Amino acid sequence: MSQKTILTGVKPTGQPHLGNYLGAMKPAIELSKQPKTQTYLFIADYHSLITVHKRDELNHMIYEVAATWLACGLDPSRTCFYKQSSIPEIFELNWILSCFTPKGLLNRAHAYKAKIQENQELGRTDLDTGVSMGLFNYPVLMAADIVIFNADEIPVGEDQIQHLEMARDMVQKFNRQYGEVLRLPQFSLKRQKLIPGLDGRKMSKSYDNHIFLFLEEKKLRKQIMKIKTDSLPPEAPKDPNQSTIFELYQFFASESQIEALRQRYLNGIGWGEAKEELFQLLNSHLAKPREEYRRWMNEKAELEKLLIAGADRARQEAQQLLKKVRQAIGVES
Amino acid sequence: MSQKTILTGVKPTGQPHLGNYLGAMKPAIELSKQPKTQTYLFIADYHSLITVHKRDELNHMIYEVAATWLACGLDPSRTCFYKQSSIPEIFELNWILSCFTPKGLLNRAHAYKAKIQENQELGRTDLDTGVSMGLFNYPVLMAADIVIFNADEIPVGEDQIQHLEMARDMVQKFNRQYGEVLRLPQFSLKRQKLIPGLDGRKMSKSYDNHIFLFLEEKKLRKQIMKIKTDSLPPEAPKDPNQSTIFELYQFFASESQIEALRQRYLNGIGWGEAKEELFQLLNSHLAKPREEYRRWMNEKAELEKLLIAGADRARQEAQQLLKKVRQAIGVES
Repeated sequence: MSQKTILTGVKPTGQPHLGNYLGAMKPAIELSKQPKTQTYLFIADYHSLITVHKRDELNHMIYEVAATWLACGLDPSRTCFYKQSSIPEIFELNWILSCFTPKGLLNRAHAYKAKIQENQELGRTDLDTGVSMGLFNYPVLMAADIVIFNADEIPVGEDQIQHLEMARDMVQKFNRQYGEVLRLPQFSLKRQKLIPGLDGRKMSKSYDNHIFLFLEEKKLRKQIMKIKTDSLPPEAPKDPNQSTIFELYQFFASESQIEALRQRYLNGIGWGEAKEELFQLLNSHLAKPREEYRRWMNEKAELEKLLIAGADRARQEAQQLLKKVRQAIGVES
Repeated sequence: MSQKTILTGVKPTGQPHLGNYLGAMKPAIELSKQPKTQTYLFIADYHSLITVHKRDELNHMIYEVAATWLACGLDPSRTCFYKQSSIPEIFELNWILSCFTPKGLLNRAHAYKAKIQENQELGRTDLDTGVSMGLFNYPVLMAADIVIFNADEIPVGEDQIQHLEMARDMVQKFNRQYGEVLRLPQFSLKRQKLIPGLDGRKMSKSYDNHIFLFLEEKKLRKQIMKIKTDSLPPEAPKDPNQSTIFELYQFFASESQIEALRQRYLNGIGWGEAKEELFQLLNSHLAKPREEYRRWMNEKAELEKLLIAGADRARQEAQQLLKKVRQAIGVES
């Protein structure tokens, strides 16, 4: 096998911030440009249905995440970019895999166990309170997402390793019964870059310390000006390695830009000035994606067409795999 | 709504016997001939996958059950007759419904609870031993089977009432969120005819007292000769209402035939003679279906084509419903 297949799913979760971009999107987009790889990147809209039961909200989030990835440089001619909900083969395979998945395996899933523990702590008698079958079945659907495209490598965070191992269990169980029909997926651990937020802690919506990716210029500037600094006077030399501003700057700057700002820190730079440097750099990098994002969000029909084209390409692969599986289990001759 | 939609699923479970035919198939076929009804009858092959993990066995059982229904008089021009596995829309809807199904609901499903109890009685520490996610999810798939065709009425046995109620719960929960998108199915209780077996108890493979439906003539005769009788001499008057032979005879005979045999019982009839009467009658009714069955089993390609044609008709309906659902939840605009 000369070509490697890498698959990544992204859940629509609302407006992306700098931490999402630098931590997840940028690395995935770089990965998709590697030679000798076929990448699949899908919008996991049916995973979102587990929690989002409002039509307009889900619909908006789907377009939002699609527009975001395209605006940030995902090349849909290189990457199969599609909505999970456009690949019906996944859901048939989901049922098939469920027949080879012991319930006991899913009883041990982290996300489910966390919910049980929460109910325990709240003193609830029904420990399954708030658990839908969608939530409980989620690892099976994730396995189907992967297996349907014969994916070799799934870049995952620590929290997803268990799900990958479950997918491997299902594949092995199936293959033991029917021969080598399904490809055994591997995971690659994503390097978890820590992107600092306004207060220096990890950037996260739950800390409310985030900078949205597509803020308009004025608002972006205002957010950056909120970055917490110490009270050293402007002329005092400053340690670049202790500065959130400098840290964020490095993610976008060239080597020589980094070096130049480092010197200014050591020679003494006012925090306002440093923030202005960061703003200028960020703005120059984000102006075009921001504009692209707006454009896509105003052209949803075109966006939809692009996603459908991605799905059509992906489905050819999915149909082949499903046919093999159907013949293996005997529902098709 | 002038036309009622009735849906019945049949699980491929191996060679049918007289009890299956008289208790389940004949009434369903009669129902399918009622005016102003649209009937769907499907082979629940993906339900069988929960337990049957052997390719050839499952494949054979699917054709066997299809050939059986056709041989017994199902008219595929009146009834949508298809394999569940040919309607991919069911499996997407299955996922959607699972997001609206509390896990607590399925914890209370009879089939699951029976398995748990069995494990308890065996002293197993893992009460989910032998429970696959397919088994656990089965009521959700059954709901999808029904809802996808806007079925109004589902004829069920006592043991299936709970599943129907679960399907109604799912539909109501979905509709509360999105409006009246799904039709609320009703059940009609199937009159459970008791068909006696060779020993007088209910005919069942587990009692090994069954008469297979498509036995060749000689074997059929041999089986009927095995029906348990008492030791009254031939000339003694006999009570027709205490006779398995007479009971089975009534299912196939005309009023006048029944009356005539009743008289012979009262006047005294030898058991051998009575059995011969039953054999002649049964054989005259089953000769043509038996031949039809053989023919279909030798023409699997034609059988497959017929099932595919049924699925194509059914899918038009399924696609419309699924589109409505997708638009309601927001994965489609």
